[in-house]
Amino acid sequence: MTNRQIVIAQLPEGALEPDHFRMTETPMPEPGDGDVLLRVILMSIDAANRSWMKGATYRAAVNVGDAMPTYAICEVITSNSPRFKSGDVVAAEATWSDYITAPARNVQKMPVSETLSHHMSVYGIAGKTAYHGLMNIGRPMPGETVLVSAAAGSVGGYVGQIARAMGCRVVGIAGGPEKCAYVTDKLKFDACLDYRDPGFGKALAAACPDGVDIYFDNVGGKILERALNLMNERGRVVCCGAISQYDTDAASGPRNLPGVVVVKRLRMEGFIVTDHMREDARALRALNHWVQSGQITVTEDIVEGLENAPAALIGLLSGDNTGKRMVRVGPDPS
Amino acid sequence: MTNRQIVIAQLPEGALEPDHFRMTETPMPEPGDGDVLLRVILMSIDAANRSWMKGATYRAAVNVGDAMPTYAICEVITSNSPRFKSGDVVAAEATWSDYITAPARNVQKMPVSETLSHHMSVYGIAGKTAYHGLMNIGRPMPGETVLVSAAAGSVGGYVGQIARAMGCRVVGIAGGPEKCAYVTDKLKFDACLDYRDPGFGKALAAACPDGVDIYFDNVGGKILERALNLMNERGRVVCCGAISQYDTDAASGPRNLPGVVVVKRLRMEGFIVTDHMREDARALRALNHWVQSGQITVTEDIVEGLENAPAALIGLLSGDNTGKRMVRVGPDPS
Repeated sequence: MTNRQIVIAQLPEGALEPDHFRMTETPMPEPGDGDVLLRVILMSIDAANRSWMKGATYRAAVNVGDAMPTYAICEVITSNSPRFKSGDVVAAEATWSDYITAPARNVQKMPVSETLSHHMSVYGIAGKTAYHGLMNIGRPMPGETVLVSAAAGSVGGYVGQIARAMGCRVVGIAGGPEKCAYVTDKLKFDACLDYRDPGFGKALAAACPDGVDIYFDNVGGKILERALNLMNERGRVVCCGAISQYDTDAASGPRNLPGVVVVKRLRMEGFIVTDHMREDARALRALNHWVQSGQITVTEDIVEGLENAPAALIGLLSGDNTGKRMVRVGPDPS
Repeated sequence: MTNRQIVIAQLPEGALEPDHFRMTETPMPEPGDGDVLLRVILMSIDAANRSWMKGATYRAAVNVGDAMPTYAICEVITSNSPRFKSGDVVAAEATWSDYITAPARNVQKMPVSETLSHHMSVYGIAGKTAYHGLMNIGRPMPGETVLVSAAAGSVGGYVGQIARAMGCRVVGIAGGPEKCAYVTDKLKFDACLDYRDPGFGKALAAACPDGVDIYFDNVGGKILERALNLMNERGRVVCCGAISQYDTDAASGPRNLPGVVVVKRLRMEGFIVTDHMREDARALRALNHWVQSGQITVTEDIVEGLENAPAALIGLLSGDNTGKRMVRVGPDPS
């Protein structure tokens, strides 16, 4: 038996392309003492994969010859540890591979009562980021207007659905008419505007007749500048990301900062999901409630096959996903 | 007996100049039924006086022929209301005048146990703005580093002194070596940097070896951009003003916004002093404690004589004040 892995063939200078990856076949890895042998089921695909290829961040850089790291849901095949047995389902730091080995202490057991992929979407980083950012930073009140950029993305879709469940009017921003239709038809946002449309500015203002109380910002740049001008007094800007600026040296920040923050007494606040880890149990209970009640439609974008992981990442960077993107390497345990 | 008043002779197109004002002499005003006749003692001089000449804001515009409005401390000369008697000291919305009349219901009685001018500085808007902004928005902890722009101004000086009393390292930013010396020598900041100095950027970083936990921003623009780069994770930016942008259309906002807010999980928040009115009593008790203990030096910049009010305002706009600027029109009650 052999093991397939996708490794870095060369580091990108500019845009990421398929040639930057290479499929390898190696002998099946052997778990050492205290290790587990894992079969990879689902891999999370994130913009962070790309940033790791740029150099060291909060983790070591990914270099030529390395298999791409990923967060994965796996099945235990062989366990050399008393903590796990064959057939257990676990979450692990893995690589783009069919099989990996890992020290048992680095592996977490997963509940199997839910659809496994939900642990990577609504009950994973995406859903928890949406919940903590909206609820703990934005603090929505019924009747308020919540504006969400990257509304068809993995986090934005949950933000809007949670805000609707909280009794808010929800307006999304996305790129292109198909995504906007998906956001209003499938995710039930009250409105969604296409930022590529020449009439975007006027349409956005018209969709927010009572102004904006919370802006959940995934993009920064010009869209942030526009949103700030629509904010009501005492509004909150949840700073979750700045996708528009990751690949550029921004020539200018929003021209209305900090003036509009002073005049309207706004609060702008950044966060990462682990800042609110203490409240994860509360978040998961609420998310589960909304899924059960039908107020949250779980949005997942699952690409089939390990061999398609490079294309799945390249596409994600150009925004071709709707909902949380992941790659299915193998079937759920039977 | 006549009454002197300073009225608007013409509205400024560009910079404010003495010619835009004119001194008039009119008969002594007569208080009507329910009114009080007040002798003006101290007048607050604020950048807001200038903005009222630009058009309607939260109050009606000031026009040619109008006496300049001002917040003032006054002595009651004649009272046609049971609420006040001759000799009472009151606060009132007044004008640049020796005497005014006002409905008794619009006038507040002042305690006279303190030096009267302190009600316009440390116990007035300046001190309360510093307290509420630093304590309620910034939330300082002992050992943190607090950076304050416009440190020699009416608010900034109190911010730094309160932060030192709370056990913080305090670094100021001011314009010119004299102001910087005043901030370190008289207000006892740990350091103060001159933003006009060519080596300002490096000197600022060197003065904050442990980074910045709270930036109290009175200026916006390039100084805000620099301060953001020095912020520590979970830092707070108190957005109190944007002086650098009041007279210009800013070509660019801070280029690191919102990226740095996301990456460092910062909180930027605007406020006005009345947002925290509920805690005014607590603020005044704390400010009084620090004045009594010598931890706050009361900084006031009192210009003598009604006739000098135009020059006092023009100078304030170019930053020639140290501490809260006011004009003394007449002596304290004997």
